[in-house]
Amino acid sequence: MSQTAAPREGEQRCKIIAAAERLFREIGYQKTTVADIARALGMSPANVYRFFGAKSEINQAVGRQMMREVEEALREIALGPGSASQRLFDLVTANEAMNAARYVSDRKLHDMVEAALTENWPIIAEHIGNVDACLELVIESGVKSGEFAPLDPKLGARLVHTACIRYCHPRLLVECADHAVPSSAQMIDFCLKALRNGR
Amino acid sequence: MSQTAAPREGEQRCKIIAAAERLFREIGYQKTTVADIARALGMSPANVYRFFGAKSEINQAVGRQMMREVEEALREIALGPGSASQRLFDLVTANEAMNAARYVSDRKLHDMVEAALTENWPIIAEHIGNVDACLELVIESGVKSGEFAPLDPKLGARLVHTACIRYCHPRLLVECADHAVPSSAQMIDFCLKALRNGR
Repeated sequence: MSQTAAPREGEQRCKIIAAAERLFREIGYQKTTVADIARALGMSPANVYRFFGAKSEINQAVGRQMMREVEEALREIALGPGSASQRLFDLVTANEAMNAARYVSDRKLHDMVEAALTENWPIIAEHIGNVDACLELVIESGVKSGEFAPLDPKLGARLVHTACIRYCHPRLLVECADHAVPSSAQMIDFCLKALRNGR
Repeated sequence: MSQTAAPREGEQRCKIIAAAERLFREIGYQKTTVADIARALGMSPANVYRFFGAKSEINQAVGRQMMREVEEALREIALGPGSASQRLFDLVTANEAMNAARYVSDRKLHDMVEAALTENWPIIAEHIGNVDACLELVIESGVKSGEFAPLDPKLGARLVHTACIRYCHPRLLVECADHAVPSSAQMIDFCLKALRNGR
């Protein structure tokens, strides 16, 4: 791939992130070097370093991009049609399915997730906050419509997210894979009972 | 310590487990050898091997012993006086406090917990089952007295345990230490709302 004239910085960054993600899936996150990424794009490592100061910045950007895709899907559900209960169900199950597809089935990507968790990358707290915000939208609308009992939507979002952590957290998705009960559907039903009732 | 005449096998095993636990706390779980344990008890390594076939069996026994202490405290709460709601609250908060004291504050012991989780020692599934059984006792009595809505106590126990995993799981206790909200008290309150209401 040759460089086009005056490519916008954002576009170049996107290309680098996409190439890095592909390599992380193919040869693994640890084994991929900046030189590999540059070679895949037909550019020099020095050119990659114009956009990212270090490999660690590329790692974070790949992780952020994968999480953003999930967040966008969840936000669409949160703002979509249907009762608050239905949207809460759809949101948690979509989150579970997307995380499982991204981080569990793909063993090579799971290594990156392990590193992100162990090294506590800042993108994790950001992602948790963004999922919380989606849950908050649903709970706020449910409280407004009277479907749910009065409750601070921020607290409600944290409660549902924490109660459902076994279906969100990549490590727990692996660790609890053999625990069929409770299913996410059973857990969401349990949370909905709590949300519907003020006491 | 010299060997007393015809010591009962159980007593000897207990002594070995207690000495191993002390050494795990002092010098760490990985660094403790069977020779260290034998020396601490004034016996030969061969004598330790009469009771435990391998170091890994001693590790499991130490873990099992520490978990049993927690399980006994929880069972006492489950069978004790007070409303089902109060006992559920006491049970989950005692579990949180005891696990934090055992596995989080004590960094050296946390290494053993990490190994147990990573290598999926059988004692973990056993412990989860035993805590479930305590929760089941409380939920069953709450359903019987009408304090909780009708619900299969086994499923109820799994739901509460899973919703509260952030306050039970040693890794999550560390990983979520900075997340003050929801507190375990807030989460138990949320679970109680769900348990009290059938729909």
